[in-house]
Amino acid sequence: MKQLIEQVNKHLDEYMQIVYPEDIFKAMKYTLMLPGKRLRPVMCLETARILGADIEKAFPTACAIEMLHVQSLIHDDLPCMDNDDFRRGKPSNHKVFGEANAVLAGDALLTFAPQLIIEQSKSLTSEQIVKIIHEYTKFAGAYGLIAGQVVDIESEGGKLIKSPEDTLDFIHMNKTAVLFRLALRTGAIIANASEEIIEKFDIFAKKFGLAFQIYDDIMDEISSFEELGKTIGKDKNSGKLTYVSLYGLENAKQKFKNLIQECYDIIDNYDSKIFKEILDKLNNRIGSV
Amino acid sequence: MKQLIEQVNKHLDEYMQIVYPEDIFKAMKYTLMLPGKRLRPVMCLETARILGADIEKAFPTACAIEMLHVQSLIHDDLPCMDNDDFRRGKPSNHKVFGEANAVLAGDALLTFAPQLIIEQSKSLTSEQIVKIIHEYTKFAGAYGLIAGQVVDIESEGGKLIKSPEDTLDFIHMNKTAVLFRLALRTGAIIANASEEIIEKFDIFAKKFGLAFQIYDDIMDEISSFEELGKTIGKDKNSGKLTYVSLYGLENAKQKFKNLIQECYDIIDNYDSKIFKEILDKLNNRIGSV
Repeated sequence: MKQLIEQVNKHLDEYMQIVYPEDIFKAMKYTLMLPGKRLRPVMCLETARILGADIEKAFPTACAIEMLHVQSLIHDDLPCMDNDDFRRGKPSNHKVFGEANAVLAGDALLTFAPQLIIEQSKSLTSEQIVKIIHEYTKFAGAYGLIAGQVVDIESEGGKLIKSPEDTLDFIHMNKTAVLFRLALRTGAIIANASEEIIEKFDIFAKKFGLAFQIYDDIMDEISSFEELGKTIGKDKNSGKLTYVSLYGLENAKQKFKNLIQECYDIIDNYDSKIFKEILDKLNNRIGSV
Repeated sequence: MKQLIEQVNKHLDEYMQIVYPEDIFKAMKYTLMLPGKRLRPVMCLETARILGADIEKAFPTACAIEMLHVQSLIHDDLPCMDNDDFRRGKPSNHKVFGEANAVLAGDALLTFAPQLIIEQSKSLTSEQIVKIIHEYTKFAGAYGLIAGQVVDIESEGGKLIKSPEDTLDFIHMNKTAVLFRLALRTGAIIANASEEIIEKFDIFAKKFGLAFQIYDDIMDEISSFEELGKTIGKDKNSGKLTYVSLYGLENAKQKFKNLIQECYDIIDNYDSKIFKEILDKLNNRIGSV
């Protein structure tokens, strides 16, 4: 896992060259290179590998997904959105480069990611590239990430879909699960997997994404700033809709455990140390709180 | 021309369906459907046509380019950028939907545009789609539009490349000309044109883009709010770098006329009423001021 993360970091660093006008590339690279768990690219690479592809083929797509993730973080942190001063333990993008550059750095990452897939995926067919970019555009936009962010902002103003439960599910399916879905679906496409296999990994990604968000909500409730590297307790203080605020800590933990178990059941059919390591880590952490 | 603009508007309206969460799609559609000259999509369609393609094939790409253009307008108007309250004679996006939604509407347009190209271009090959999206991502991002916007903002703070002349050329080549280059290059790709022909249309687009920006600078100097539909005289008042401020009105007009003549020289080899109509309109307008 650690080795794979290092490989992702190395590729991200290589792909993101600083050229003129340097300021915008520096802003893009700043948040991108902050130490992160690189979960989404790692899971994309591992999906491609266990389904039979050479993982070298998957690095451009895996790194593009991390760029999309970072783009969403940069824009979410803006003063007009969540107004967050810290990200991954460091000042957020607009605190370092100013608001205008943070907006533009996010915009630039959003189109650099598919550009990277096209330029660096020489061993994929045009059909595969079109499929991958189609997944990317659907999940990145108003049918995915953006939908989640919009409904999240509106829910803070009291606007709900039907119930708070439906609203929360919609937000997290779109804000969190879509990036895991994108990672696993594109990993499977790179391995030329059948529709049936892609769907199986998609189900895993939805369950994992939801579990991951519940994990995040629980950690936000109980952890300290030093551990998470971002402003915490914010959700609680703002009366924000979370799994913990809605279901209570014990029910949230149970919901998390059920989902993680379903993930084990799917992935046990494959020989994947990486997926098991990821599930174990989250599971053990929740087991100890 | 008028008929073609109507067809573009009809396609934009059809492509941009309002679905849940409606607020974001409404924000995207608001600025998109404000009456505009639709120059970029029209020129994409006309390039495809005069190079032998059925223009029906080109509507998704043409409309995607208009979406990219509108995205850049929405983000440029934000308070942290140009802070402009009006666009195409109406309140700008963030004045109607708020800053957060304006940022997100721009983000969503940026990925909806290539999504549209993939979903609606059934008669293009995967190779053509990859080529078109490659052009899109290069020109939309930090190697194109965003580079222009960054250097523009920095030049207002007094930071120049080498000379004011070099800086201004860089800004307008990237902020303005790239969208025309994208329109003509993709139109040619849709018609399966050779590299040589693509390059010829690219040269036209660079010259036209520069001429169009000089036209804009001249109009900003001399027109009224009612004519342009945006806050004008702003460039002059802010001491902003423009062709008029740098070269004087007469020299700017001469530079415009030379570029437009070079455009006529290229396009006279083709049977295109539309291109001639566009060149004539700009030319006559400058001739009368």
